[in-house]
Amino acid sequence: MSATDIRVAPHVSHCHQACCHATTGTDITYTRRVARWTPNARGRLETAALELYDEHGYDQATVTQITERAGLTERTFFRHFADKREVLFGGSQLLQDHLVERVTDAPPSAAPWEAMTAALSTAGDVLPADREYSRLRQRVIAAHPGLMERELIKLATLSEALADALQRRGIAARTAHLAADTAIAVFKAAFTRWLETPEQSDFATLVREASEEQRVIVGG
Amino acid sequence: MSATDIRVAPHVSHCHQACCHATTGTDITYTRRVARWTPNARGRLETAALELYDEHGYDQATVTQITERAGLTERTFFRHFADKREVLFGGSQLLQDHLVERVTDAPPSAAPWEAMTAALSTAGDVLPADREYSRLRQRVIAAHPGLMERELIKLATLSEALADALQRRGIAARTAHLAADTAIAVFKAAFTRWLETPEQSDFATLVREASEEQRVIVGG
Repeated sequence: MSATDIRVAPHVSHCHQACCHATTGTDITYTRRVARWTPNARGRLETAALELYDEHGYDQATVTQITERAGLTERTFFRHFADKREVLFGGSQLLQDHLVERVTDAPPSAAPWEAMTAALSTAGDVLPADREYSRLRQRVIAAHPGLMERELIKLATLSEALADALQRRGIAARTAHLAADTAIAVFKAAFTRWLETPEQSDFATLVREASEEQRVIVGG
Repeated sequence: MSATDIRVAPHVSHCHQACCHATTGTDITYTRRVARWTPNARGRLETAALELYDEHGYDQATVTQITERAGLTERTFFRHFADKREVLFGGSQLLQDHLVERVTDAPPSAAPWEAMTAALSTAGDVLPADREYSRLRQRVIAAHPGLMERELIKLATLSEALADALQRRGIAARTAHLAADTAIAVFKAAFTRWLETPEQSDFATLVREASEEQRVIVGG
């Protein structure tokens, strides 16, 4: 790839679906002024990065190594990610935007908890279809205190965003924050179980189970 | 205070009670070999530090300034705190130890949630009697992203510790983590309300109210 490589990809989505993650081996190459567009560059960079973080440790892995393994340039890397940490957390923003949108779009008649759990149930839509990818990501994060901190901050930010969304539905701030934090407990439980269970299990089912278990725990 | 200052304080507790925080103006001074013991040095250092963090920003305040304001030496400071961040988070460990102990000591017949909320209800025992001190601490932390991160990590650590305590009571890991995370939502709600309400309000009452509100939210 030349230094005059120009991005011509239409919309590079943050999609984690298997269809995008599959490496086709075919590269569409444009010549003259309009340089090559690499299909699924983002997915290839993510996989290469996670493998390297897992094999050598997050701190040791370099962007150069990631791009070499992915067979892409550093220029392409920085087109998709601000830095090597962003490879791990780009999906968090996507998840947050998705959940906030679901809560916002819930019917006006929906109670806070109904809107919240209905939103959580759709989280599977933005989680990677290849669950092994998420397991690898979780292992990398768990092995690094700095990344664990970042993960906690992302969850706290998600809770804040959900509380804001509830407040925009007319829910009092106190109730909105309590409901959002309580929902995060359900989300964490469902996500942990999603990682631990076979690929056939459905995120919506795990949310329903965790939510029901929580209701029993608090004496409902 | 001389360089041969020797610590003779019997047990310097982490007490935040108003009785300790009150500056009496009287210093008990021992001469000859046994150096001066400063009553409530810890409380004076905490107050001086928080005031400085609030006035000038956490990053700007130095240990030298803290000790000057408290009328104590740096040596005394480092006898009580590892660094200037520890001034803000020393109480978190105390709170965690206290809550874990309560959960552990709950009657064997107590259900997980019963043990958990009973423990949370006693958190007031280790919170500063002077609520203004906690409000100041919260303001300092909220103004500094790095301190906010640390606060989140302390809460996550507290949740883990409570889940461990439940597991030692024979509760399955999944349920223990879900219950602990759900309890943290109640604790956060109670603590926020405790900071916002007059000094007369009781932490146990706020835990009961938040817990009841949560039960209603999740449809119990």
